Amino acid sequence: YLRVLVTGGAGFLGSHLCRRLVAQGHEVVCLDNFFTSQKTNVADLIGKPNFELIRHDVTTPFFIECDQIYNMACPASPVHYQYNPVKTMKTSVLGAMNMLGLAKRVKARLLQASTSEVYGDPEVSPQPEEYWGKVNCNGVRSCYDEGKRAAETLCFDYHRQNGVDIRVARIFNTYGPGMHPYDGRVVSNFIMQAINGEDITVYGEGKQTRSFCFVDDLVDGLMKLMNQTSTIGPVNIGNPGEFTIKQLAELAIKHTGSSSKIVHLPLPGDDPQQRKPDITKAREILGWEPKIKLEDGLPKAVAYFSSLDLSRF
Amino acid sequence: YLRVLVTGGAGFLGSHLCRRLVAQGHEVVCLDNFFTSQKTNVADLIGKPNFELIRHDVTTPFFIECDQIYNMACPASPVHYQYNPVKTMKTSVLGAMNMLGLAKRVKARLLQASTSEVYGDPEVSPQPEEYWGKVNCNGVRSCYDEGKRAAETLCFDYHRQNGVDIRVARIFNTYGPGMHPYDGRVVSNFIMQAINGEDITVYGEGKQTRSFCFVDDLVDGLMKLMNQTSTIGPVNIGNPGEFTIKQLAELAIKHTGSSSKIVHLPLPGDDPQQRKPDITKAREILGWEPKIKLEDGLPKAVAYFSSLDLSRF
Ligand SMILES: NC(=O)c1ccc[n+]([C@@H]2O[C@H](COP(=O)([O-])OP(=O)(O)OC[C@H]3O[C@@H](n4cnc5c(N)ncnc54)[C@H](O)[C@@H]3O)[C@@H](O)[C@H]2O)c1
Ligand SMILES: NC(=O)c1ccc[n+]([C@@H]2O[C@H](COP(=O)([O-])OP(=O)(O)OC[C@H]3O[C@@H](n4cnc5c(N)ncnc54)[C@H](O)[C@@H]3O)[C@@H](O)[C@H]2O)c1
Ligand SMILES: O=c1ccn([C@@H]2O[C@H](COP(=O)(O)OP(=O)(O)O)[C@@H](O)[C@H]2O)c(=O)[nH]1
Ligand SMILES: O=c1ccn([C@@H]2O[C@H](COP(=O)(O)OP(=O)(O)O)[C@@H](O)[C@H]2O)c(=O)[nH]1
Ligand SMILES: O=c1ccn([C@@H]2O[C@H](COP(=O)(O)OP(=O)(O)O)[C@@H](O)[C@H]2O)c(=O)[nH]1
Ligand SMILES: O=c1ccn([C@@H]2O[C@H](COP(=O)(O)OP(=O)(O)O)[C@@H](O)[C@H]2O)c(=O)[nH]1
Repeated sequence: YLRVLVTGGAGFLGSHLCRRLVAQGHEVVCLDNFFTSQKTNVADLIGKPNFELIRHDVTTPFFIECDQIYNMACPASPVHYQYNPVKTMKTSVLGAMNMLGLAKRVKARLLQASTSEVYGDPEVSPQPEEYWGKVNCNGVRSCYDEGKRAAETLCFDYHRQNGVDIRVARIFNTYGPGMHPYDGRVVSNFIMQAINGEDITVYGEGKQTRSFCFVDDLVDGLMKLMNQTSTIGPVNIGNPGEFTIKQLAELAIKHTGSSSKIVHLPLPGDDPQQRKPDITKAREILGWEPKIKLEDGLPKAVAYFSSLDLSRF
Repeated sequence: YLRVLVTGGAGFLGSHLCRRLVAQGHEVVCLDNFFTSQKTNVADLIGKPNFELIRHDVTTPFFIECDQIYNMACPASPVHYQYNPVKTMKTSVLGAMNMLGLAKRVKARLLQASTSEVYGDPEVSPQPEEYWGKVNCNGVRSCYDEGKRAAETLCFDYHRQNGVDIRVARIFNTYGPGMHPYDGRVVSNFIMQAINGEDITVYGEGKQTRSFCFVDDLVDGLMKLMNQTSTIGPVNIGNPGEFTIKQLAELAIKHTGSSSKIVHLPLPGDDPQQRKPDITKAREILGWEPKIKLEDGLPKAVAYFSSLDLSRF
């Protein structure tokens, strides 16, 4: 069994990851400052002998003896990360510095939760890992995009300069149970609106595309990347099923049987027009590919959001 | 008169800047950790009543009352910045954070020494400020390129979030008296090699291009950008005179009357193939353009390098 540190472990992806690791018998330490999550996300794990919850901000040094680090700590929703852009940049860069310093000291393997946002507003589709990206470094998304690119740079420099054992996962849009109902992300917004019969708020004309990966598939991919030694990455982890945002709105209405209507609001700044992962590397090197199509994953998300006690949020 | 802080003030550009500011009667504080420079660069200023030299590393907080900050502290030569890539990233990012925190506290105006490297290996030429760049975030230059892009992001977020008065200068290749003879940059290498009758080391075929700006012109541009209020930038500051590296080698031989021969060595990783600033914005908004052509600047650099007491370095 391994001693595994999961930063951002109370978040959407982190909580699923902690749950899986605890179930496998590993000794899991979940580090979080609860900036975009609540303890309730991991309520079922609290009290288990091989689960420990530590309130800590990754921008400050943290000392622990561990074998693996999943560095997930960073707000992922544009609404959240644009709330305090300077803090978002600090979380990505200082967080990576501290966790890489930790990994160097204790010779742990570190997996960095990077993002498709490192590709910015991509001119190519699908996006392969070799594509350098088309990214604005002065825009409203830059605190996240450049923060995550700088974190990747730090990972590769700690690897080249100090021999730290890194894994870099470029995570594409992920949805499923465990999402925060009011995080402002498109899947949570549309399903919540559809359930409540409110207007479905499509930004722009809705022609922009995203590719949606169900959380169980995503967590599989992260663990596969962590526990192999053929590649340090970067490796795209996502579902190549590409949809326009308009299509997603229609699917949300269909899967909830809602009478909500679609309305159009202005497009946020620097909103990427398309996103579709090339997952050849994940398929061939990790032997991973997503199993759950959007058609099958959405109903699970709808069931989750419908059953939520919203007073918790 | 103003209280002006110049970080990296003992460096190539910083020392020229300090000299000009001191001559204008401003109260100048030169902050430097001497990572890529010596005190001798500012020997003529030491002892002057309105010049103060402080040994300090910008990655650590620094407290002073001042009106303007020129944030120049960062190794600029690829040889220097690739020597300790993690330190280079820290200098750019933590340095920007600390100087922006300082500027926020004392309401000073901060000019960030950014770079044409934020454009990476540009697909367009000349490069206008609106071009987002084509940058590798995992390569050997990333610690510098991504460090400087993240520093720009921080500047714009401190501006948007905290109202800090910023100026962002994208500096293109600059040469002239005051360069470190062994900094590994192309102008210093070629002139030193030509003077010593050594082989001129052209990396690759020498077809890659750069645009060379004489240091006096560059410093003019920085001060013009700092002391106007029509734009916060980014503004390209450079000389659009584009030359292949082969041409530069031939000019170095011509202007030294050297018998050195040109040899070819492997191209360093991620070496940009072309670089030429679009300086429309500087011309129209700052009323600035470079006056000294390479033909006229090179002899001044040759005179400087020839007269150097190399035991100082
Ligand atoms: N979910 C996606 O679609 C997606 C896509 C690409 C990348 N990612 C990345 O995956 C990771 C997790 O994303 P998520 O969807 O679970 O987001 P989330 O916001 O649900 O989880 C992030 C967690 O990190 C914590 N956190 C934030 N700042 C912190 C700090 N300074 N110190 C300690 N903890 C901090 C938050 O409290 C939260 O629990 C993030 O790094 C994100 O960038 C997610
Ligand atoms: N010269 C160019 O062609 C060029 C081109 C683009 C950008 N720039 C930028 O202009 C600035 C100055 O460049 P330069 O040519 O004078 O380089 P330089 O290396 O001669 O000067 C940099 C100075 O910063 C100091 N320094 C480095 N790290 C420091 C730290 N952590 N704390 C305090 N001081 C530190 C060095 O000791 C040196 O005195 C840099 O920010 C560079 O990125 C220069
Ligand atoms: O177990 C550790 C070891 C280091 N660090 C932090 O990681 C960062 C980088 O550490 P490293 O040793 O790489 O660099 P240095 O301390 O020399 O800056 C520093 O801020 C350390 O405080 C940490 O948080 N936990
Ligand atoms: O209520 C919403 C929320 C998001 N979006 C769009 O859905 C896409 C995905 O946005 P999200 O915030 O989920 O994440 P992103 O992929 O932009 O980081 C973007 O084009 C958004 O403009 C939308 O149309 N309506
Ligand atoms: O005069 C100052 C004021 C602040 N800082 C540093 O600048 C950084 C950012 O300061 P800010 O107040 O913006 O943010 P915070 O302190 O809340 O992180 C911090 O590390 C401060 O220590 C500094 O070096 N000099
Ligand atoms: O001895 C040298 C040093 C540099 N270069 C080339 O000259 C250009 C400018 O290199 P420099 O290090 O001066 O700065 P850069 O513009 O690459 O940051 C690059 O294409 C280098 O490959 C060269 O051919 N020989």
